[in-house]
Amino acid sequence: MVDSDPRGGLSKVRIEALTDGVFAIAMTLLIFGIKVPVVTPVTDKTLRHELVRLWPSVLTYVISFVMLGTYWVGHHNQYHYIRRTDRLFLWINIFFLMCVASIPFSASLLGQYPAARTALTVYGLNLIMVGGFLYAHWRYATHNHRLVERNIPPELVRLAKHRILVGPVASAMAACLSFVNVRLSLALFALIPLLYLIPGRIDRHWLRSRGEDLDPSRSGAQSD
Amino acid sequence: MVDSDPRGGLSKVRIEALTDGVFAIAMTLLIFGIKVPVVTPVTDKTLRHELVRLWPSVLTYVISFVMLGTYWVGHHNQYHYIRRTDRLFLWINIFFLMCVASIPFSASLLGQYPAARTALTVYGLNLIMVGGFLYAHWRYATHNHRLVERNIPPELVRLAKHRILVGPVASAMAACLSFVNVRLSLALFALIPLLYLIPGRIDRHWLRSRGEDLDPSRSGAQSD
Amino acid sequence: MVDSDPRGGLSKVRIEALTDGVFAIAMTLLIFGIKVPVVTPVTDKTLRHELVRLWPSVLTYVISFVMLGTYWVGHHNQYHYIRRTDRLFLWINIFFLMCVASIPFSASLLGQYPAARTALTVYGLNLIMVGGFLYAHWRYATHNHRLVERNIPPELVRLAKHRILVGPVASAMAACLSFVNVRLSLALFALIPLLYLIPGRIDRHWLRSRGEDLDPSRSGAQSD
Amino acid sequence: MVDSDPRGGLSKVRIEALTDGVFAIAMTLLIFGIKVPVVTPVTDKTLRHELVRLWPSVLTYVISFVMLGTYWVGHHNQYHYIRRTDRLFLWINIFFLMCVASIPFSASLLGQYPAARTALTVYGLNLIMVGGFLYAHWRYATHNHRLVERNIPPELVRLAKHRILVGPVASAMAACLSFVNVRLSLALFALIPLLYLIPGRIDRHWLRSRGEDLDPSRSGAQSD
Repeated sequence: MVDSDPRGGLSKVRIEALTDGVFAIAMTLLIFGIKVPVVTPVTDKTLRHELVRLWPSVLTYVISFVMLGTYWVGHHNQYHYIRRTDRLFLWINIFFLMCVASIPFSASLLGQYPAARTALTVYGLNLIMVGGFLYAHWRYATHNHRLVERNIPPELVRLAKHRILVGPVASAMAACLSFVNVRLSLALFALIPLLYLIPGRIDRHWLRSRGEDLDPSRSGAQSD
Repeated sequence: MVDSDPRGGLSKVRIEALTDGVFAIAMTLLIFGIKVPVVTPVTDKTLRHELVRLWPSVLTYVISFVMLGTYWVGHHNQYHYIRRTDRLFLWINIFFLMCVASIPFSASLLGQYPAARTALTVYGLNLIMVGGFLYAHWRYATHNHRLVERNIPPELVRLAKHRILVGPVASAMAACLSFVNVRLSLALFALIPLLYLIPGRIDRHWLRSRGEDLDPSRSGAQSD
Repeated sequence: MVDSDPRGGLSKVRIEALTDGVFAIAMTLLIFGIKVPVVTPVTDKTLRHELVRLWPSVLTYVISFVMLGTYWVGHHNQYHYIRRTDRLFLWINIFFLMCVASIPFSASLLGQYPAARTALTVYGLNLIMVGGFLYAHWRYATHNHRLVERNIPPELVRLAKHRILVGPVASAMAACLSFVNVRLSLALFALIPLLYLIPGRIDRHWLRSRGEDLDPSRSGAQSD
Repeated sequence: MVDSDPRGGLSKVRIEALTDGVFAIAMTLLIFGIKVPVVTPVTDKTLRHELVRLWPSVLTYVISFVMLGTYWVGHHNQYHYIRRTDRLFLWINIFFLMCVASIPFSASLLGQYPAARTALTVYGLNLIMVGGFLYAHWRYATHNHRLVERNIPPELVRLAKHRILVGPVASAMAACLSFVNVRLSLALFALIPLLYLIPGRIDRHWLRSRGEDLDPSRSGAQSD
């Protein structure tokens, strides 16, 4: 809560508060993509049948929830190193949040039309935009140490960039795959969250830096 | 807000912020499970009649709101003892929140089909998953003192485990009962929140530990 | 953020966080009670006509938003004096929030059926329950100084009780009036928020106590 | 988090928490203004066709999200200078939030009827009200230094007033333009957020004041 650098404290805290809010709401609103089925006549068999047919919506719910969770952690990891903010940085943030807040729409669209290439493309584009703005966010902040601390290791900056790009690149591949086979495309979307489950080289970096300075917030930074 | 252990502070605070957000939203969205009835012609009698017919939705609203409140308190009680976080722990948290955020769907389903065994089973499964992840959360954190303080009393770890399991076990029983009698199953679901109203052995434990060290956050920990 | 009494700090902060969340969400969800009209054919005249017909929904939106704002301030004013929490107090809080979260339903019902006595009664009952739990909350906390500081002036306790009761009593009157004339009943509901706009004797009390000790949070307490 | 003036601290923090919540929710709920299209038969061509037809909703989503983001920053900039609160100030805040929370309705209306003058007028009026209450908020707080610090530069007070008025004035112009040409009116609404992207004279002022005292929260204040 207390920031070491006197020039970026409160503003950082406020942006984080809005970000936490938008993420928590977008994640929770995803559930509205799964509609309670209307069945006639109401029997256990018809209801079970209709619920089973909801599997694409459930799958999209799980993928989207985990992806948003992943991006939320990624955003916070970046903020650990950010010391200042400026007007353009704030605007990148607002556009990032705008793309985050539109995931419930894309997820709902994909859940309803899981076999339509268009729905897979829209969902992929939305994920690419979220990841792209997160990448721009990090690039803008770290370029020439614009908004970060001076002594940030260059390797960390580079590894974090690579790590962020995993999401958009895989999303682009999944969206392209939809032109070949829609089922395979959906399967690849389902695999993206797993890519973030695997610890990467950046983890070792964070673990090392954590061991060195016992910084209070590095421990969270190890997972993205 | 200030964490004594230097290796898990900010991350803990951030996870708690996201958790508070998801719980508050999921609890408030439950109300959308109660649909404003459409009546024709609009008379007091027809409207009253339609509102009375909403009782299953109202009952599910009350049960779900109180259950989510209970699990929210349980999550915070755990965080009182947690000192560090790691990647897997964060993922358990995200899956826990995913199940929490899906309660509005299950509750709405049960409110609309209170006599369908399938709806009772889905609702029960959802509650079991929320409770199960909360159990996994505690087990993972306390196993070999992985993420908790060294001097945590073993009896507290054990009692908290039992206390958490009350919810999922009772939910499983209620879901199974639906194969015998749907009304009884619904009644058992309505009783689960009451089980948490009764003070248990863990309260005495917390009261004792509170008396010993006057720890600022134990007083909240006494209720789960 | 920092609590002077070591036995109720963190828990108090957490309850306030959940409360802030539920209030902010319930207040913002109220807007879904005003449905975007479907018009055919789409002309300015038909659209304007349909929008004008939404006036009961708009009125209910305004009343409910201001009432929730008022109760939110009232809840915070109470927390200024509260030093400890216990299990029953937490449960009063959860039931209070449950009634708060159901206001969007009652408001939407009244907006759709503004001439139905049943809708006016349901809305009134909901407001009575919110106010009633807030009253119980204060009564439980202050009875024999159970959860409040010892030196709280008895007159303040009494005046706060009266102030809280204004809402539920006026709501009950408005609900009863619906049996005589529905338009008058709606008008009385619209007047309730104004009752809280008027400064009362409790203000002078708070102003005095503020002058005496310059307590940082009394200034907010002056408005309810 | 810690306020230098002893008479307005906690209350300020609490109002900011509610404000952050209402903004984050209103911004995220905007997405419900873009409805997932229902297409029959489900082909890529029909779905693509229907998605393209959603462009007015997407445009309104973008405008509204950015406008709310802008007003959120503006509200926080004001709070940087505010030291005290009083009853009337709190009420201005609540009415401000009420207008903010109604943007999802106006945006959804405009997205559905982008060619209707009535929808453009309603949307414009809503933006005027949000900006107007933000103006009243600042005017009330700064008049005779009512709620702000004594040494606030008069030029800053004046420049901030002008800056806030940009939004409502441009909204009024866009709404009026709808009586001439609805397409032009929509285009002007789309331009308003860009007006806030351009750094203004107030930025230089803030940068200067930041350089002087290195106040931790001025850096956020530079963007509105």
